[in-house]
Amino acid sequence: MTGAESLIRTAAALGVEVCFANPGTTEMHLVAALDEVSGVRGVLGLFEGVCTGAADGYGRMCDKPALTLLHLGPGFANGIANLHNARRAHSPVVNLVGDHASWHVHADPPLASDIESLARPVSSWLRIAKSAGDLARDGAEAIAAASRLPGSVATLVVPSDVAWGEASGPASALSLQPPASVDGTRIESVARVVRSGEPTLLLLGARGLRERAQRAAARIAERTGCRLFCETFPARMERGAGLPVLERLPYFPEQVIELLGSVRNLILAGVSEPVAFFGYPETPSRLVPDDCISHRLAEPEEDVALALEDLAAAIAAASEPGGAEWVTPGRPTGELTPATLGAAIAAVQPEGLIVMDEAATSGLPYFLASAHCPPHTYMSLTGGAIGQGLPCATGAALACPERPVLAFQADGSGMYTLQSLWTQAREGLDVTTLICANRQYRILRIELGRAGVPEPGAQALALTDLSNPSIDWVGLGTALGVPSERVESADAVVRSLERALAEPGPHLIEALL
Amino acid sequence: MTGAESLIRTAAALGVEVCFANPGTTEMHLVAALDEVSGVRGVLGLFEGVCTGAADGYGRMCDKPALTLLHLGPGFANGIANLHNARRAHSPVVNLVGDHASWHVHADPPLASDIESLARPVSSWLRIAKSAGDLARDGAEAIAAASRLPGSVATLVVPSDVAWGEASGPASALSLQPPASVDGTRIESVARVVRSGEPTLLLLGARGLRERAQRAAARIAERTGCRLFCETFPARMERGAGLPVLERLPYFPEQVIELLGSVRNLILAGVSEPVAFFGYPETPSRLVPDDCISHRLAEPEEDVALALEDLAAAIAAASEPGGAEWVTPGRPTGELTPATLGAAIAAVQPEGLIVMDEAATSGLPYFLASAHCPPHTYMSLTGGAIGQGLPCATGAALACPERPVLAFQADGSGMYTLQSLWTQAREGLDVTTLICANRQYRILRIELGRAGVPEPGAQALALTDLSNPSIDWVGLGTALGVPSERVESADAVVRSLERALAEPGPHLIEALL
Repeated sequence: MTGAESLIRTAAALGVEVCFANPGTTEMHLVAALDEVSGVRGVLGLFEGVCTGAADGYGRMCDKPALTLLHLGPGFANGIANLHNARRAHSPVVNLVGDHASWHVHADPPLASDIESLARPVSSWLRIAKSAGDLARDGAEAIAAASRLPGSVATLVVPSDVAWGEASGPASALSLQPPASVDGTRIESVARVVRSGEPTLLLLGARGLRERAQRAAARIAERTGCRLFCETFPARMERGAGLPVLERLPYFPEQVIELLGSVRNLILAGVSEPVAFFGYPETPSRLVPDDCISHRLAEPEEDVALALEDLAAAIAAASEPGGAEWVTPGRPTGELTPATLGAAIAAVQPEGLIVMDEAATSGLPYFLASAHCPPHTYMSLTGGAIGQGLPCATGAALACPERPVLAFQADGSGMYTLQSLWTQAREGLDVTTLICANRQYRILRIELGRAGVPEPGAQALALTDLSNPSIDWVGLGTALGVPSERVESADAVVRSLERALAEPGPHLIEALL
Repeated sequence: MTGAESLIRTAAALGVEVCFANPGTTEMHLVAALDEVSGVRGVLGLFEGVCTGAADGYGRMCDKPALTLLHLGPGFANGIANLHNARRAHSPVVNLVGDHASWHVHADPPLASDIESLARPVSSWLRIAKSAGDLARDGAEAIAAASRLPGSVATLVVPSDVAWGEASGPASALSLQPPASVDGTRIESVARVVRSGEPTLLLLGARGLRERAQRAAARIAERTGCRLFCETFPARMERGAGLPVLERLPYFPEQVIELLGSVRNLILAGVSEPVAFFGYPETPSRLVPDDCISHRLAEPEEDVALALEDLAAAIAAASEPGGAEWVTPGRPTGELTPATLGAAIAAVQPEGLIVMDEAATSGLPYFLASAHCPPHTYMSLTGGAIGQGLPCATGAALACPERPVLAFQADGSGMYTLQSLWTQAREGLDVTTLICANRQYRILRIELGRAGVPEPGAQALALTDLSNPSIDWVGLGTALGVPSERVESADAVVRSLERALAEPGPHLIEALL
């Protein structure tokens, strides 16, 4: 068999089921191998950022990697922004990047570029495959690297002669080390802190936002009175009725500083100390005040849930509180605003919904409104590289075909990877895309003010404006095969959302704000 | 003034007129500076690949750089593919990349990444600005580096504290070295070759495809009987009535090997020896047979036109042939095929048209049909990173507002950077986009066959298919503000093209092949 077939066969044997592909000439043997091997399904994206973002969403929901299949340096480059987000999300992703035949690179053909230099910033594991005979083993190592908790991005560059060369067969699985567990000394040290009675905030991130970890955290809060927060941009968080109501760490640095001003101990579970998203004059990077002491309970790569359970046991926090009551909020009426839009989603969202929130300045009211909704999964933009929402929702829908997905999407960010809609249509995915059409980069209007430009000039206004011409999202969605409609009132968005979420297959709703 | 203002003021003083921008928070002071300074016009792209591709097209037509304004590592990454193409095109481009405040990077905020590693593969000049006081000088050096013949990509990373810090004023221009001229020894050496009477092929690339260089080449061919060819993927080539009819170096390696099999001397003017675009089993990288000798007359960074004129003088090639006659081809009728589509463009194209050809497998018939058309400029995809056509046409139209532009565009490639259409609509650019809708990645079907998969399986077919669902380009164009229509016959495309090219402003024609 070819090296390509040995690689795909290895991936299939190790449980890989999906390959988000945008292939080119150098990947033809890998494409052919998808037909030789059963079990790995190729899903076409019309732009590489769709493929990498979909792999991120898939990895968040499945806790195992999908493959991406990308074309040389420039094809990989088109996928970097969403790999950056995947890296920040700790998502397991395995990139296969076709390259020129190893003997051809020296000729500097037009598509040659330094793939290693491009890949290193977003890859925790990176290898240029050297021989067809070793390719299966390379693939097994890439999959193991990506799968190691909490998950990361592995990139395997496959020269085309390595893909088409002769290999003996697939590789066997590598044993995965279990996640490191937190030792008793650290547990006991944190236990002393939370028992102190001082104002304490327990900040959860990464796997600390899964159900088991949250339930342990709720017991700790019940016992000690500490406040429970989630990180600002969770990769994946279980939420809703029956789970604890977590507060959310704010976005702007001065808000975090103010919040932590009344906190004496900050317990970190699956998350690092909060830092400013951007640097501003007169504002520090580090947001923890000097009289607030940070305590690292568990790193993202450790077993966060077990650490929280051990901590709960150490302080004899036996009783689990009831969690959020199941409350169906009323249906909003009247004008369409971020507040009524958020209320509309909360009013109609079905149990098991996966919400991918890249709604930017239109998003927070929904988060606040939905803590008591039916149990659901919440995902957000982890790395700040916009254009992640539509692909991530696409991947999540492929990962969980039995669950509806809502892509809650800002219009400016949505334009980066709108090709995702076509993949949703092709695959018949149950994704409802809700476009928050405020027709501007509103966050930049806010940031201009923060930068000392309260009244932007003509150029600054133009460079933050999306209204000339207005983007017709209904037209875009329809053109890419997704049934689409526009709504201009809260009442209408409630009706449209309810219908779209109930019907299978993709839908798009452009909500004019 | 701020560092940002000193930088933009410097750029304006050095003749920079356009900034293709997709800014974020870290670029707000640079955006504000565009309002402080007159002369640099911000043009918004809704995705960074639009900005970098537009800067490429602008640079090709203006022979001076535009700025791009990009947001940290991920924003830069979204522009890499078209910077790769710009690098291969020798286009002058100056990227300004906002970064976190220098003191904030150590905190590893979500958007932090290794921008240098990402930028190096596509940047011939790369600098991280260190102080507001030096930023203007950094900018002047970037502009000088990008402008040095034949043009290249310069990237200046601007930490936000450098942008907002205090600067004293703009920098003065740096003196540009004139291009190196080819010395008499090399001219005389090549003169002996072309006088030999042996079968000789003169291959022109880069600035060797401008009018002056071509006219000198035509005199050499007239005198010696050598054949004149252009490189396979010219960045910018003047063509049509009055200019010599150049043949075009073929794409597939076996075609080049066959062509050169009958050639004894290959003269290279502004171009390197041809190499295979991709490596295939049993096919060499280097396509020049052993009994064909390459002679480098002029490198791209040398004065190619002068070298050709000196060579013409050295062989006393005084008389310039008449060049292509002005022939208006007949209008095709009947079925729409790549041949009739190419004939349709050739039949109606006005004098001065700029053609950006990213039509891939649908493109060659047009090239062959248009040698005798009214004088026009032809541009092609230089680096193989698809998604360059629509942005490049956008930039060319901004560079040459008095000339109509045709974006002759494959459907698969067009999807990568379709956001360009919105910028065309916003700026009222005179671009006609002609989509060759064959609804597949046809080149990959061909390459599958070359890879030994003559009958692709279900997955290989699906991964090269764009028909399920069909992309509605009329819907996409309309949704982004561009008047759009669909044609299904040669007669109809002639009528639509003629109308669209005559009317100002952008148009889109989806030609169903």
